[in-house]
Amino acid sequence: MNTFTYYNPTKIEFGKDKENKIGEYLKQSNIKKILLVYGASSIKKNGLYEKIINSLKKNNIEFKELSGVVSNPLLSKVNEGIKLAKDNDIKAILGVGGGSVADSAKAIGVGAKYDGDVWDFFINKAQITEALPVFTVMTLSATASEMNGNSVVINDETKQKYSIASVLINPKVSVINPELMATVSKEYLAYSAVDVISHCIEVYFTASVHPRFNSRIVESIIKTIMETTEILLENPNDYDARAEFAWAAIQGLNGLTPAGTEGGSFPNHMIEHSLSALFNVAHGAGLAVVIPAWMKWYKEQNISQFKRFSKEIFNSDDENVGIEKLENWFAKIGAPITLAELNIPKNRIEDLAINANELATVWGFDKLYPKSSIIEILEKA
Amino acid sequence: MNTFTYYNPTKIEFGKDKENKIGEYLKQSNIKKILLVYGASSIKKNGLYEKIINSLKKNNIEFKELSGVVSNPLLSKVNEGIKLAKDNDIKAILGVGGGSVADSAKAIGVGAKYDGDVWDFFINKAQITEALPVFTVMTLSATASEMNGNSVVINDETKQKYSIASVLINPKVSVINPELMATVSKEYLAYSAVDVISHCIEVYFTASVHPRFNSRIVESIIKTIMETTEILLENPNDYDARAEFAWAAIQGLNGLTPAGTEGGSFPNHMIEHSLSALFNVAHGAGLAVVIPAWMKWYKEQNISQFKRFSKEIFNSDDENVGIEKLENWFAKIGAPITLAELNIPKNRIEDLAINANELATVWGFDKLYPKSSIIEILEKA
Repeated sequence: MNTFTYYNPTKIEFGKDKENKIGEYLKQSNIKKILLVYGASSIKKNGLYEKIINSLKKNNIEFKELSGVVSNPLLSKVNEGIKLAKDNDIKAILGVGGGSVADSAKAIGVGAKYDGDVWDFFINKAQITEALPVFTVMTLSATASEMNGNSVVINDETKQKYSIASVLINPKVSVINPELMATVSKEYLAYSAVDVISHCIEVYFTASVHPRFNSRIVESIIKTIMETTEILLENPNDYDARAEFAWAAIQGLNGLTPAGTEGGSFPNHMIEHSLSALFNVAHGAGLAVVIPAWMKWYKEQNISQFKRFSKEIFNSDDENVGIEKLENWFAKIGAPITLAELNIPKNRIEDLAINANELATVWGFDKLYPKSSIIEILEKA
Repeated sequence: MNTFTYYNPTKIEFGKDKENKIGEYLKQSNIKKILLVYGASSIKKNGLYEKIINSLKKNNIEFKELSGVVSNPLLSKVNEGIKLAKDNDIKAILGVGGGSVADSAKAIGVGAKYDGDVWDFFINKAQITEALPVFTVMTLSATASEMNGNSVVINDETKQKYSIASVLINPKVSVINPELMATVSKEYLAYSAVDVISHCIEVYFTASVHPRFNSRIVESIIKTIMETTEILLENPNDYDARAEFAWAAIQGLNGLTPAGTEGGSFPNHMIEHSLSALFNVAHGAGLAVVIPAWMKWYKEQNISQFKRFSKEIFNSDDENVGIEKLENWFAKIGAPITLAELNIPKNRIEDLAINANELATVWGFDKLYPKSSIIEILEKA
């Protein structure tokens, strides 16, 4: 078991109606003025916006607003938020939405305390040493951004989907009310399920050391996500299934699954980021295409763990069955499993590989994933 | 799934040699003067004491010392520590040892900021609103005190083994170097294994709502503890097994397993505390006696979860097999499973029941466990 530091100071407020207390949570942290970040008008239609505003007003918290954050959040929008935060002496960022909103809130929090270009942090030109505190109210569970220090943003000029990570941007408080997620479309539920599974299996398959407990946690999350996704596709209003999905999703990327493993990389995310960056593919949809292809390409490098996966998740002794059944399950829940389904022509594979390989360089595993390997993987998709 | 708050701000520094950095960790928290709390002279013999002192000196951290904390830690010793802390303007408490030392450090941290009798907090006469920060370097893994806000202390005058809980006494930083645990006796390893399993199964069996993920986490911890205990009884120097045991033990009582469950109580701990308080039984030894008796007494109240336990842990469809095999496993690893083995005569069962029922009252489930029920349970032991 490898040496590690585990530190996750995010407070999770989980359950019905907790969004009505967001003003209290901010007040408890002595926050008096925030930037409220959200996506489209849906939170105005469903009443969530009003609840948030009421809670802020009740607790005398001033606010400015930034709306229009999109799935695959854009650097241009982040920069807009940074300017708003700087111009208005904002003391904290409150993201209300899904992973894109939370990620944008974090990037704004970092940029608001920095004189230079916030993209510097994404390309390792600068290290995060301070940030405005971030709070979230989640309306979608997938990225675990609500309980980690990660933020992924697309630079709309350079077409790079890059990330930052620091415990300084772990949300102080995240509100998870599963009821707020009941209106997520079946399509996005499926993409979310794929995203959670991807977080779990990246290190599970790529690490060189697999402590028993870590493998078991990953398998527990995957089984829970698969079971609850199937329930929710039938009945989106099943509160318990929604709640279990949300909590399992958080465990998938809050630091627990990799703690003590050795090695471990995020090749599927690296490759998928090029799909999102160049073709604006939804993250989970891109992952559903990349994962089975990558598994087929990679399996010989860690055959025992692929056998374990097959056995634990699909009760088969054949490592190929695990891959095949996962791919089938992605298709069954409505996720795409080929580039063709994403309308990405084969002749763009080289462009994708170049983009992904640039990110591999930033992440420090370009030797493991030269352009030629990424092409090999994408050709299986 | 129930509403919950999850908040665990302890930073875990896990791995070889990390004890040499304890001075740095304190310095990073701007701590300049500490009370060093430990047990017997063993840490002086094995060199750990010297390492700690060197690290403190290197980082210019002044210290006072309190030694002599015993297993089943005593209030009298805690009061000694509180006086030392108050008299010497101590800014943090550093516990170096096992759960008893960590628990004592926490109680001292609370008492040092309080004008009255620290026992007030244990009997719900006062609520914790502040405490000196606590740091730990662990030499034994069992209680998870290194990553929770619990402290259990015996009042040597009243013979009560009671507890406090507050996130304010979650350690700021806990150092877990599995190498420091290699000299734990086989007896204490067995008791530790029982203790971890007890933490897991209390809520697992007593909750009225069992989310899938929680049950799976509990089962993952139990399997990991059982496997690594068997390895360590054969080879105490197996680093990976020691490390996996330590990390799984932490997960057993850091807030993860009960999050979102409903109902849930700690009857085995409640009853065991009377054994420790009246007969100074090692906590894990007492639990090994209480647990199988309680399981036999309780199983009809949650038959489906007992069936699940049997299936997942011992691959049997018969709920009785799970109880029987767990009891046998306790015996196999060298833990006592009867009151007789603890030299507690049957005619003292009533005294134990009175003591345990007093604690049930403090914990608020005296109606679930009247004296008569506790007697019924102990008569099965």
